Amino acid sequence: MTDISMIEAARQRIGAHAIRTPLLSSPFLDEIAGRKIVVKAECLQRTGSFKFRGGWSAVSGLAPETRQRGVIAFSSGNHAQGVALAATLHGVPSVIVMPHDAPKIKIENTKAFGAEVVLYDRANEDRDAIGAALAQERNLTLIKPYDEPLVIAGQATVGLEIAEQGAEYGIAEADILVPCGGGGLTSGIALALEARAPRYAVRPCEPENFDDVARSLASGKIERNDALSGSICDAIITPQPGNITFPIMKSHCGSGIAVTEDEALRAMVLAFLRLKVVVEPGGAVALAAALFHGAELKTETVIAVASGGNVDPAIMASALSRFA
Amino acid sequence: MTDISMIEAARQRIGAHAIRTPLLSSPFLDEIAGRKIVVKAECLQRTGSFKFRGGWSAVSGLAPETRQRGVIAFSSGNHAQGVALAATLHGVPSVIVMPHDAPKIKIENTKAFGAEVVLYDRANEDRDAIGAALAQERNLTLIKPYDEPLVIAGQATVGLEIAEQGAEYGIAEADILVPCGGGGLTSGIALALEARAPRYAVRPCEPENFDDVARSLASGKIERNDALSGSICDAIITPQPGNITFPIMKSHCGSGIAVTEDEALRAMVLAFLRLKVVVEPGGAVALAAALFHGAELKTETVIAVASGGNVDPAIMASALSRFA
Repeated sequence: MTDISMIEAARQRIGAHAIRTPLLSSPFLDEIAGRKIVVKAECLQRTGSFKFRGGWSAVSGLAPETRQRGVIAFSSGNHAQGVALAATLHGVPSVIVMPHDAPKIKIENTKAFGAEVVLYDRANEDRDAIGAALAQERNLTLIKPYDEPLVIAGQATVGLEIAEQGAEYGIAEADILVPCGGGGLTSGIALALEARAPRYAVRPCEPENFDDVARSLASGKIERNDALSGSICDAIITPQPGNITFPIMKSHCGSGIAVTEDEALRAMVLAFLRLKVVVEPGGAVALAAALFHGAELKTETVIAVASGGNVDPAIMASALSRFA
Repeated sequence: MTDISMIEAARQRIGAHAIRTPLLSSPFLDEIAGRKIVVKAECLQRTGSFKFRGGWSAVSGLAPETRQRGVIAFSSGNHAQGVALAATLHGVPSVIVMPHDAPKIKIENTKAFGAEVVLYDRANEDRDAIGAALAQERNLTLIKPYDEPLVIAGQATVGLEIAEQGAEYGIAEADILVPCGGGGLTSGIALALEARAPRYAVRPCEPENFDDVARSLASGKIERNDALSGSICDAIITPQPGNITFPIMKSHCGSGIAVTEDEALRAMVLAFLRLKVVVEPGGAVALAAALFHGAELKTETVIAVASGGNVDPAIMASALSRFA
């Protein structure tokens, strides 16, 4: 299980390979929200999302002879890029199994980061069977996107930085809003903060209609989403919370917050205008919660994680024309 | 005159009020350039440009009784916002004299940062006369955009950070590419690097047809631009190098580099896609030089400053549709 010593060890292995992303703020955002909003700009991380941290943590945490044979991952995007670049920088091969309808930019980037990409048809093919066959044939190690202690430890390094940077900022107490898919980032940050900033309370944020984590936290048991596609927040859509991540979130997190797609897009546009960062819709749900769901928040200052920036330029252009 | 002790003093006064902006990189940019490109993302600075540093340095450097009466500045944009926010955070009034055709977002932001904005007509009114009358009437202190040692010292703190962050990155020797208007940022960085990283050589970057600094460095004396408007790189258009900044640039900088408007726009789009930062066209000229003017560069690694991010969303949307 992931604990603070495992998280500190992940930080040691990551070292200067990942960017210590800045905290950003703007009086314009504070005015909209009626409270102080601080953004942890993890969209600036290498590969454009926090997933590079988990990828690096997992690849670097393997025994050398295991690592040398290579790794495999299933991902529609950001985890793919994170694992691909982490493997390439370690000089080992990576295979990424992606749905053929994943955003084109994410498929291309994953290849460019050095991975072999194997596409499958979500409707007619069994991803797990394809992956299992490849893994066995080539003796590859599977790196799961969130239900993997080493990955959670890597994502948790965002939490270590939030604790340190928040203290530098003078923030004693805060809701920490985190975009949540399977829960790797959310549970990792929660574990880090429990040890390093116990007055920071993690609140998972999701898109409406895909709020499996909020509903699971409310009911106390794992709940599923009805649909698995059809959200512009594709980066954070998962069927249900992870088996490892959910118990951590259940014991460590406050209630979840669900935002509309338009709120996510407006948050994306405000991040562009006011913070000068590019955030993808799924990566903007926490900022959307900070800006537009004040009634559900408990602290004068909130820290929202902007978890990724791999947005299709056409989606950004359209959102700018609607909301800028 | 600005020297390293004055620069270190400016950094002390700025403290945690400014963001220590990160160095960002992407293998995609390296591949285009055929060398390692590192970007100092100063577009993430408060108010969206490095000008906040100079504004803070100047306002904080005034004697308290002088500061209390307020400050005045002439600016078409980024200097205005930097001075306005610095004054407001010090609790003192600011008046900004702006051309009535300045980008609307910059006028609005300057007001929102707490300044009183006085507009004038570039064609028919005398900016200096308007400003002098206001300054005298209200006993305000003029903060010049670049020909002012305290302002240069503030911008120079970008250079201190480049020296430290470059060393952390393992960069022993590099061309440092800097978007250059009047030369406050360029000369400040050059002074800081002379003291802290003498193997980093500053290269001023400008738009074609507005390359007064490059031509002045080539001829050894101050040369003027023929035109003063008509560039999409509005943030860095000035009539000529400053009287204080030019001698510093002449003794400290390598030759200048001029890029086309399309190169600046392509660099802006690549910063969006690959680094997830929003850069304005004028702020992207150094990255454009790094990407597209390799023959004029001398080092395996270059550091390009992205100096500002206050771009009109319509210009970004149009550039994304052309170049993404």
